[in-house]
Formats: sequence, structure tokens, C-alpha cells
Amino acid sequence: MKRLTCFVALLFSLIVSAGSAAQDASEPLLVEKQSFSFENFETLGGEVIPEVTIGWESYGELNEAKDNVILITHFFSGNSHAAGKYNGDDALPGYWDSIIGPGKAIDTNKYFVISSDTLVNAFPHDPNVITTGPASINPETGKPYGLDFPVVTIRDFVNVQHRLLTSLGIEQLHAVIGASMGSLQALEWSIAYPDMVERMVSVIGAGAMDAWTIMTLEHWARPIKNDPNFNNGDYYDAEAPLTGITSTLAMITQQAMHPVSMNMRAPKPEVLPEPALESVLNSTPVLDFLFANAAQRAPLADGNHLLYLVRANQLFIAGHEGDLASGLAKVKAKTLFLPAKRDLLLQPYLAQQAVSLLEQQGKTPGYDEIDGVWGHLDGLFSIQSKASRIEAFLETE
Amino acid sequence: MKRLTCFVALLFSLIVSAGSAAQDASEPLLVEKQSFSFENFETLGGEVIPEVTIGWESYGELNEAKDNVILITHFFSGNSHAAGKYNGDDALPGYWDSIIGPGKAIDTNKYFVISSDTLVNAFPHDPNVITTGPASINPETGKPYGLDFPVVTIRDFVNVQHRLLTSLGIEQLHAVIGASMGSLQALEWSIAYPDMVERMVSVIGAGAMDAWTIMTLEHWARPIKNDPNFNNGDYYDAEAPLTGITSTLAMITQQAMHPVSMNMRAPKPEVLPEPALESVLNSTPVLDFLFANAAQRAPLADGNHLLYLVRANQLFIAGHEGDLASGLAKVKAKTLFLPAKRDLLLQPYLAQQAVSLLEQQGKTPGYDEIDGVWGHLDGLFSIQSKASRIEAFLETE
Repeated sequence: MKRLTCFVALLFSLIVSAGSAAQDASEPLLVEKQSFSFENFETLGGEVIPEVTIGWESYGELNEAKDNVILITHFFSGNSHAAGKYNGDDALPGYWDSIIGPGKAIDTNKYFVISSDTLVNAFPHDPNVITTGPASINPETGKPYGLDFPVVTIRDFVNVQHRLLTSLGIEQLHAVIGASMGSLQALEWSIAYPDMVERMVSVIGAGAMDAWTIMTLEHWARPIKNDPNFNNGDYYDAEAPLTGITSTLAMITQQAMHPVSMNMRAPKPEVLPEPALESVLNSTPVLDFLFANAAQRAPLADGNHLLYLVRANQLFIAGHEGDLASGLAKVKAKTLFLPAKRDLLLQPYLAQQAVSLLEQQGKTPGYDEIDGVWGHLDGLFSIQSKASRIEAFLETE
Repeated sequence: MKRLTCFVALLFSLIVSAGSAAQDASEPLLVEKQSFSFENFETLGGEVIPEVTIGWESYGELNEAKDNVILITHFFSGNSHAAGKYNGDDALPGYWDSIIGPGKAIDTNKYFVISSDTLVNAFPHDPNVITTGPASINPETGKPYGLDFPVVTIRDFVNVQHRLLTSLGIEQLHAVIGASMGSLQALEWSIAYPDMVERMVSVIGAGAMDAWTIMTLEHWARPIKNDPNFNNGDYYDAEAPLTGITSTLAMITQQAMHPVSMNMRAPKPEVLPEPALESVLNSTPVLDFLFANAAQRAPLADGNHLLYLVRANQLFIAGHEGDLASGLAKVKAKTLFLPAKRDLLLQPYLAQQAVSLLEQQGKTPGYDEIDGVWGHLDGLFSIQSKASRIEAFLETE
């Protein structure tokens, strides 16, 4: 439990000395990872998962009325660790520690903030992650599910979180807030449980996947599917498809960034480096910067989990029925959309599409762009620039 | 010789009915593919290729003084076929037919326009392509070179073209013009042969590869390197790495486009399509649109050639010595840079970097952005919007 989520660790390591996303490390919130299990979960696709276990953590205190709850939903490569530290000597706090904590935008003196790991989390071998997916043991066979695990959707992630909240007696959400894939969950929450969600914040998000993004996600899946070790997802007794996973993680890392931030951090390209001239198979320091780092993280990920996450995202359209307008018609929550201006992965037009449809329905979604040089990752590293906007939104009646 | 270059054919098929890049199909210029060979070519890396053969074609007439020559250098997935048709019944003309021809911006009534296939062309199995690379027969062994072929650079492409022009008695270029990888060659021409090049036009181009783009290119290489059939480049007696090549071509196609143009052309994503819910391995119409098309073109490409092209581009820094400023210091040509406003592959900052350095050297590069919804491909499909700018530039003294 002392390890950091590696994806976050990598990205934070990139910004060491950048100073552009300084974390407030004073008085670290100490948090504890917990576990929640239940049986016979029926998916949106009509399949039943006999046992589901997910990890979760919380910051602040649940009040007696249980009406001060803010749910944080995590991004593709993330997990429940949104704020605080598990141990005082952890190198880094959770990914949104700059806005979650005592006196911060999401004030843990006022709110009970809770966050859980999703189903099919990308990094099931990260000791901080507790998830259920293809790498989990199928109680019917005593072996990992592999591709026998049912395809799951963002709605399923939401329904699992709903079970967790119900188990805690929580029937109302002051707000649900998420970045990237977390934004899909946040929006889906406000449609699946419209009477329960009072406020919804979508950070670097979308209302539905467009063809462009569905294709982008497929590029993340193909290196794993085409890895010689993949074996139709049945590799748990043999070598894992680590080469494919490495390609996938490297693509995700790059696409979540922007040329400005990448070029600031990466080694300067050399002029006619000897090894690169000797063979097309030889690497260079620039390539090592991206791929060697991804290779280090690959063993904590699972190939099948990544494929299931890709599929869950590809299938996303808020409400999962008819068209996007039909889904958004069910939203009762106040909404705020915060795309990142230089996002190359989920460009602002995706958030704008949802905002525009909500406005056509007579609603008043808030909209503001996060400025920064990180691209998609400005949703994490530059979120502090929208702290007061988020704080004010949470205080609206 | 009747086939169209498949990459171009695909992209043009995408815009059928779009009408945004209408080709002027009246009075098609009829052109003939020719071949040029020479021996003992020494690469920038100091290796010798015993025999080089490349294809070329021309439009217009070489005047007696041989001073009306415009060289067109091709993009990554392209070849010499920049304008006209090989046969009157070809479905489509060359890729820049909208600006090359009698009375057009690059007026073949005035200029002798010539274009050649590069070394290590991506599609050596396209019957319209004549190239030398790893798939060519090594005269020393009687078998394909595979990875014994020396790594080549953009400078080598230029030097081969120089040999072709010299063989035709051409010692002066009125202009050299290229898009994307063609822009790298055009700029390199003006540094390698500064007294020979009078004008240089860089379309959707760069002065040097930055770390970001070097990484992007590596994503194109890895599916081939990691294909089980790759066998260290030695697959010519066995199955080709077509699965990897398909991934690569699909990535290139997407990255050369923009969400707007892609979403206009691709099928509308379905809500909870049954096959996609049944297995993460199942495809959808959106994915087929991209990947099935790429799979169709894959047999005309060669895996090793793609790796060599990737490497040539990764190694590009204009002048190939010291830093970019040192290379650009040698430029004597008048220059014009035309990046595409919505380019996601070679974003305008790359052209701006070269322009800024040239200005610091007291030169007066022209700069203008191509507007459109195609992204990188606006350099092909929207080039007509800059026809008068190019025409005027070619008329400057």
C-alpha cells in the first residue's frame, strides 16, 4: 500500500522542477484504502458477475444527515487515490490533492469526499488498486476470467459506485466530479440517478464518444490484441503481453500531453545519433524517455483490463439509449463543464456538444476552459486554476 | 500501372460527396512513369547502396536553358504522382492536380515540373511505385536486403533526386515544393544545394523533428516491429507483418485527419451495438471504417520500408548538422511556409519555428496558414485555397 499509482508517479516525475503544478504538501491528509464487496451484479449487457470487490477511500466526515457527500470518479489510468497520502512519507499525494482537502476548493471540513476504484481498473497489479475484472478469479472455475468476463460500460461503473454509497446509507450527492473517464461517470451518474445528484462537474470530458475518439481508443487496444503473448486473453499462466501493454501505455501518456509540455521534459533530439543510423531497431534517448518509462509500468497493468476499459469508453454515450439529447434530457443536476484548452485527446468540442444540447433543453450548464501547456493533463495538473470556480459551483443552491 | 496509389485513393474516397476538395478533372494531363537508375550511392551514414532505381514523372516541357524546373517532393504515404493521370480512365489524378497543370498555380505551360519516388517508399508493392529499399534485391546476395539495407535520411532522398536532375542536365531549380515529408526534402534541398534552389515552398512542414513528433512516429513503427511475423525484418520468404502494417496505416490515416472531417465521413456510432457488448474483440462499423480500409491497403506496403521511412523522418533536422539555425543559415532560396491551421500531426508551431529562425537571420520567409477541416491533409485537399499565393511566389524575382 506504500506504492504510488505508477501512471500518476510518472507524470508527476515529469513535472518535477516544472513548478507549474505545485502540490500543497503541507499537512497531508492521511487516508486509508478500504474495500467493498457484494454479490450478483447484473451488468447493463444483462450478464451477472457473481462477486464484485472494489477499493475506495474517503476524506472528511459524513454528517448525520448524510447530505454532505461529494463523489470523485477516476480517469482511465487512475484509481481512487484522489487526495491525501496513505503514509506520511509517500512521495506524492493523490492526483487532485490541490483541490481536495481542509480549506481547499473541495473542502473536507465541509464535505465527505469519497472515491472508488472502477471495475476493470487498468492497473490491477498496483498494490493500491482493488478491482474486479478479467484478471480476477472466476469463482465458478477458480481461474482468472480472461475474456469470459462480461463487457462492462460506464453505466456499470456508476451502478457499482451506487451500491457502495447505498451500503454507507448515502442517498444524496451534493456533487459528483470527475476528470476524463471520470467525467463520463459523473455525467452518467446525473442521468442514471437524476434525483440523487445535485451538482455535476465534468473535467476534460465528453457527453458521448464520437467516431474520432472511438478510433483513438482502438489504437490503444490493438498493440495488446496483436501481442504474440495475448493468446485470446488467456495468458495468466504464461507470459503477459507486456510489449503490447508498453505500446499502449506510451500512446496514452503521449496523447494525454501536448507538444509544449512533452518537448519541455523530453531529452533534446540528437543530430544523427550513431545507434539510430546503425539500425532502425535501435532506440534513442527521446524514445527511451517515453517507452522505457511505459515498460517499467507495464507489469502493474493488465492487458485484458485495458481492453475492457477501452471498450467501456468506446461504448459511452450519456444515458446509453437513443441519442445524446435523450440522455441529457434526464439530467436534473446543476452542471459545470471544464475542458482543457489545449486538450488533444478529448478536445473541447466534445464538452461543448453536451453544453449546447443542455442549453437547447433550457438548462444552464456552466462552461470554462482550463488553460495550460499540458493538454489533456491540464485536467489534473492545472485544475487548481479553476479552484475558485469549482468552490463557488459547490456553494450554489 | 493503372492502379491509383492506395493511400490517396482511400482519402479521396473519403471526400466523395464532400465537395470541399473538388479536383479540376477537365482536360487531364496525361503522364508517364519513368525509371532512373545509378550505381554506388553513398548515404549520409557512409554506407554504399550498389544499385539505386527510383521512379519519376514530369509535367510540362523543359526549356532550352533548362531553367524552368520545379521539383515536387512527396509525402510519407505518397509517390511521384503529383498531377495528371496515367490513363484517361484513371479514377483520380495525382494528389496536387488542383494546383499543377496548364494555367494552374504551378503552370505546366511555363514550368517543367518533375517529381520522383523517394528511397524506401512506403508502398513498394504498389505497381505505380519504383523505389529502392529493404524489399529490393541485394545484388550481393540475390535476396531482399531486409535490415541489411542502410538507414537513410531525408538528405539521402535529396541526393538521389539530385542525381536524377543531373542526369537530365538540370543545374537550377526555379522552385522545390513539397508537403509534409515532402516539405522536409524541399527545405533540405535549399540547404544541401543552396546555389541551385531559387525558391522553396514548405507545405504542412517542419524545420526539424521535435521530441513529440519523433515519439508520434515511433508509434507508427512499433506495430510492425512487434508483429509476430516481423522476424527482425526477414519475412520475405514467409508471411508479411500485415497486422502490424494495418495498425500503422490506420494510425497514419487518422493522425493526418481531424475530428471534424473524420466524424463527417465515418459511420455514426451505434448505441450499445450487440457485437461490441458480446466481446471486446468484436469490431464495430466505426472501427471497420478505419481498420478494414487500412487492411486492404496493407499488402501494397512493406513493413521494413515503413520502419526506414519512420527513421528517416525521426532523424530530420534541416542540414543534419549542429542545430537547426546552423542548417537554416545556409538557405539562399526565397522561402514560403504553408502549415495547416488544424493540423494535429505537424502542428503550425513547427513551421513557425523555422520561420522565426530564418527571420532572425535577416531573411524574409513567407508564412500563411491553410484553413480547412482536414487537419494535416489540408496540405493536400485544401491546397487550392493557396493557389494564388503559390503562383505569386513562383513569379517573384
